[in-house]
Parts: sequence; structure tokens; C-alpha cells
Amino acid sequence: MTARASRGRRPGAPDTRAEVLAAARASFAEKGFRGTTIRAVAASAGVDPALVHHYFGTKDDLFVAALQIPVDPREVLAPVVAAGPDGAGERLLRTFLGVWDDPEVQPALVALVRSIMSDDTGALVRDAFIPVVIGPALASLVADRPEARVPLVVSQVVGLIVTRYVVAIPPMVAMPAEEVVARIGPVLQHYLTDDLP
Amino acid sequence: MTARASRGRRPGAPDTRAEVLAAARASFAEKGFRGTTIRAVAASAGVDPALVHHYFGTKDDLFVAALQIPVDPREVLAPVVAAGPDGAGERLLRTFLGVWDDPEVQPALVALVRSIMSDDTGALVRDAFIPVVIGPALASLVADRPEARVPLVVSQVVGLIVTRYVVAIPPMVAMPAEEVVARIGPVLQHYLTDDLP
Repeated sequence: MTARASRGRRPGAPDTRAEVLAAARASFAEKGFRGTTIRAVAASAGVDPALVHHYFGTKDDLFVAALQIPVDPREVLAPVVAAGPDGAGERLLRTFLGVWDDPEVQPALVALVRSIMSDDTGALVRDAFIPVVIGPALASLVADRPEARVPLVVSQVVGLIVTRYVVAIPPMVAMPAEEVVARIGPVLQHYLTDDLP
Repeated sequence: MTARASRGRRPGAPDTRAEVLAAARASFAEKGFRGTTIRAVAASAGVDPALVHHYFGTKDDLFVAALQIPVDPREVLAPVVAAGPDGAGERLLRTFLGVWDDPEVQPALVALVRSIMSDDTGALVRDAFIPVVIGPALASLVADRPEARVPLVVSQVVGLIVTRYVVAIPPMVAMPAEEVVARIGPVLQHYLTDDLP
């Protein structure tokens, strides 16, 4: 939601919030997640750090806003996490498809994935998107060894993203959501909770 | 091998073979796999179609050469296919890692994947790479319904490519090859031969 708050403004009338967001995006892109501070973003936008906190919350929140995607993955994942590990593979996938199959949301997500693949935004995925945005949610669903299980889950979900939405292989695009859930959900569950070699 | 045959030539001394390959790459990029003919590539390079056949073989072979990757995936997959569906998941993955983990080969493959994600080369993956280059090999390993199983296998392998090589998530990069085989191999086997919902 926050990422959309500047909508409705007329072009040419940028507001302080948009300037802070632009400064944040530039900083995350240039200095990475760990190299970015609220203080430096505030200085770059010419505002008080308290205003950045007021608009965006924590650095994690600022990062999610800077992604400029129409959903906050942490909010989307919250109910999946709350329901616990039993059946989490299928729930995770059903929730995922609810977001990604939505034609209002999909283009922004595909654009983000293309940007991640094509340039050094990849560093932000390694340093922030997985550890900060989705890692904690997934880690709370695994039986043990999150450092091995979370990347395995991510690998299958990323493969689904690329084949269904980015490269859009016809049989994967045409597969009904419930078939995707029935076919890939058990694999996610396997990675989350089955014995790990 | 063929894609490397022009190596060793001095810069500024392009040969006919390289001109044919450049014409082929331009045609595949502009007109797609189905829109490309040996005849049109030959005309564009100013040579006889027979010479294109002589240098590159069939249109499928020309496409593989135009990918400019240091391996022919069809040759790599041949022994996996020959050994049949039993244990194919782990063999497929071990063979895959043998190629992708090779530091001599990996950069060209990663560059190809980035190009596929970032622009319309994606159409070539849909129209040629999967149906022509890897689809037939995988289809010969499935229990039934290749149109559903092959994309599922591809989805997990693509996710591995992105997380281990392109975005390079640290725990996936650090995972020893035999652990990758032991953890993801059974999932590929599941997609190839287990009952499909």
C-alpha cells in the first residue's frame, strides 16, 4: 500500500514522501541493504530521519516500500505462518498464486524479477529480500535447519515464477492454480518438513 | 563445440562460418525459431544453403550453435536418457551440476539465462529451447503426460539455476553438489514418474 501512496498526484508535483522513497531506492541499489541507513536516506532527501520513520517505519519496512510492488510479502505470508507447518506447502502455494495470478499485481512483480536477474539488484535479494522479507516467515515453518530448507523452498518457488510468469512456458501458464497447488505443494512440504539428506 | 570453432582466429578476420552464425542469431532473435529458415539465414549471410547445412547440420543444430554456449545440452542429456527413468532424477541433476558447476562453462550459461530473462529471448525458450533442445530428452524419461511433467521438472531446475548461479543465494551456492543431488534429485524423480495429481 505504502508504495502506491503517491498515486493520484499530478506529474511534476513530487512530494516529500516520494523524494524519501527515491533516495531509499538509490541507496539500496548503490550501497546494498546493510550499507543503507535511515539517517543517510534522510540526509539525501533533505529531511529529518524522524520523518523517514514516520512515513515508512523501520529500515525493513523502507526496503519493502522501495521494492515498489503492490503487496507486502510479509503481510501476505502472515496467515500462512500463523497456521503452522502442517499443510504449509499447499497453503504457501495457494497464497502465492493468489497474488501472482492477479493481473493487477503480476506486471509489477514480473518487472521486479527481471530487474533482479539482469543487474546487481541480485545483491539485494541475497542480502535483504530473502533474509529480511521472506526468510523469517519460511524459517518459522521448517522442521529444522532453515539455512538448508528455506533456499530449497525458494528454489522451487523461483522456478515457478520464471516458468509461469517471466518466460511463461505455455503448459505452465495454462496449468490451473489448483493443479499447481496439488503438484508443487507436496514438494514445498517435502522441503519444509520431511527428513533432509 | 561448433560454437567455439571460430576461436583462435585473429580479431578482424571473420570467416564465413561466423557470418552464418551471426545471421542465424539475428534471425532467431527477430523472427523466432519457427520464423527462421536455413534458406533465409544463408541468403542473409550471402552463402548457399548447402553451406549452412554443411557447417551446422539441421535447423535444430543451428539453433544450438547460435546459443553460443560451450556445451550441446542434447549431447549432455543423451547418457541420462539412455539409462532410462529409474533414478533419472538424481542422474539428471548430477549431470546438470557437472556442467553448471564447471567454472569454464558457467559464465556463458549465466549470461544466456540473464539474456533470456531480460528480453524477448524468452520467446526462443518457449518455442525452441524447451521443445527442441531439452524437451525430447526429458519427455523420454517421464511415466506419462510429458506436457505436464516436463514443465514441472524444468521449473525446479530453473529455480536451481537462478538461486545457485544467477542470483547466487549463499546457502545454495555453498551446498555441495552431492547434497543438491540428494535433496533435489528425489523431487525431479517425483515429477518424472510418481503419480501426478
